[in-house]
Amino acid sequence: MNFYIRTMKLIDGKAVSEAIKNQITDSVNQFTARGNRAPHLAAILVGNDGGSLTYVGHKVKACEQVGFKSTLLHFDDNITEEFLLNEVENLNNNNEIDGFIVQLPLPKHINADKVLLAVKPEKDVDGFHPVNVGKLTLGLPTFVSATPLGITKLLEHYNIETSGKNVVVIGRSNIVGRPASILLSNQSKTGNATVTVCHSKTQNLKEQTLRADIIIAALGKPEFLTGEMVKEGAVVIDVGTTRVADTSKKSGFSLKGDVKFDEVAPKCSYITPVPGGVGPMTVVSLLLNTLQAAQNRGN
Amino acid sequence: MNFYIRTMKLIDGKAVSEAIKNQITDSVNQFTARGNRAPHLAAILVGNDGGSLTYVGHKVKACEQVGFKSTLLHFDDNITEEFLLNEVENLNNNNEIDGFIVQLPLPKHINADKVLLAVKPEKDVDGFHPVNVGKLTLGLPTFVSATPLGITKLLEHYNIETSGKNVVVIGRSNIVGRPASILLSNQSKTGNATVTVCHSKTQNLKEQTLRADIIIAALGKPEFLTGEMVKEGAVVIDVGTTRVADTSKKSGFSLKGDVKFDEVAPKCSYITPVPGGVGPMTVVSLLLNTLQAAQNRGN
Repeated sequence: MNFYIRTMKLIDGKAVSEAIKNQITDSVNQFTARGNRAPHLAAILVGNDGGSLTYVGHKVKACEQVGFKSTLLHFDDNITEEFLLNEVENLNNNNEIDGFIVQLPLPKHINADKVLLAVKPEKDVDGFHPVNVGKLTLGLPTFVSATPLGITKLLEHYNIETSGKNVVVIGRSNIVGRPASILLSNQSKTGNATVTVCHSKTQNLKEQTLRADIIIAALGKPEFLTGEMVKEGAVVIDVGTTRVADTSKKSGFSLKGDVKFDEVAPKCSYITPVPGGVGPMTVVSLLLNTLQAAQNRGN
Repeated sequence: MNFYIRTMKLIDGKAVSEAIKNQITDSVNQFTARGNRAPHLAAILVGNDGGSLTYVGHKVKACEQVGFKSTLLHFDDNITEEFLLNEVENLNNNNEIDGFIVQLPLPKHINADKVLLAVKPEKDVDGFHPVNVGKLTLGLPTFVSATPLGITKLLEHYNIETSGKNVVVIGRSNIVGRPASILLSNQSKTGNATVTVCHSKTQNLKEQTLRADIIIAALGKPEFLTGEMVKEGAVVIDVGTTRVADTSKKSGFSLKGDVKFDEVAPKCSYITPVPGGVGPMTVVSLLLNTLQAAQNRGN
């Protein structure tokens, strides 16, 4: 009979993000002390989706915390695609703006691909433009999209080895699953893993997850990953943030991750909570990209 | 006791490529009948690497076969990076050229990334520019690099199901392993597979390959994949083309794939030979991209 004594460690995304924000603040101070204006992030928000309002709010607040300037362009959801493209072009040409994001999702009558293609790659701090995605894929320096970047920063902070490890990414979205899978697989300090991308067409998902040293759950289905799908000692990164009705909360909802935390956590060596795991790291990664954009223009 | 009667089927890349060339010839005839000039591919070759000379030779010959115009710019290996960038710019601006390639490898004193970045994406029929790699990653229409495109065309031709299948790609190169892994994983007719990318840092590679329904061997090590690494009924695609000294050949060498064919073939449902498998498909894929480039400008 074997006895296991395992110390499950909670990955504290909030604490790590605060530490990185402090580093960013220092960098901003040094940057402005050299006579440069502060980094300036703009965000375009179309419509009044509750989640989007919250996320953009967090981003604006985070900018203030680290000494960035921020500008929020909030439009009604009946604006035309042409109007939005024109606003993007204005931001592209505005020398006072270092980087900007177009908060997704956009209303259905606007072609999101077309809008993202219109963002000047040098200001695309979300890393969504094909040329930035291509550079990431090729292992060239670029703006790495915020959530995958945040995940690698967490792994780095906790000294979680990725080289040679089996990583299973659940979800192949353009903003999380796909870029995270490439980052973890490419040659880098937080890469060199053997990565499998699973998705809705995957058969026997449990067989895949059970052999994973690290699982990245990014499919957007609350409590999808259960205890029986995870091997002892695995590292589990939960990217899910679905709003689920919850009458006990003042807001009327609670945020649910893709992981059935109570079942999975006891088996893990490390696990991220929701909220307080990947979420804060996404915001701080956007700040890191914006700082980089500012440093690219300044000196 | 179980008896297996398996019919191993050899994937005939030469025959498939000839069939596609015939289709391309038809398309060219229709295109020029509408008053358009024929598609025109240019190739830049620097130095006298034996393999590169052969590959470029095949490409030029294939152009002739299907009615394309072709231009070969062959430079000495002591040209400067600046000179080469200037030649790329000339081709970018030459309205008589629909697409062009810069044959790799380039001499060490020339930065290949810089050169590939200089190729106008609309003429980048190798699909190596970051914006085209990014579009591939995002599942947007683009020039898919030739070898991965050729592999999907082979799978399509033989009606080999990929959806939900376990695919193991050995090798994470920017021109084969990485783009092939993304293509096979994305939502498409020859996609939707559960893809694992293996590489030099992968541990227990045999465990990975033994659970693969489809193996793409693209690491460039002759006869690396042995019989004990492959499960019964697997599909094996051999991308390797290493020149190995062979005194019995007039040329002094023979081409070796990454697969130990004699051992692996009896276990396979389908397998590509080397030569005559992926190689001819790579050339024909370049033609398909060039035809597309011409059609994008013509009508």
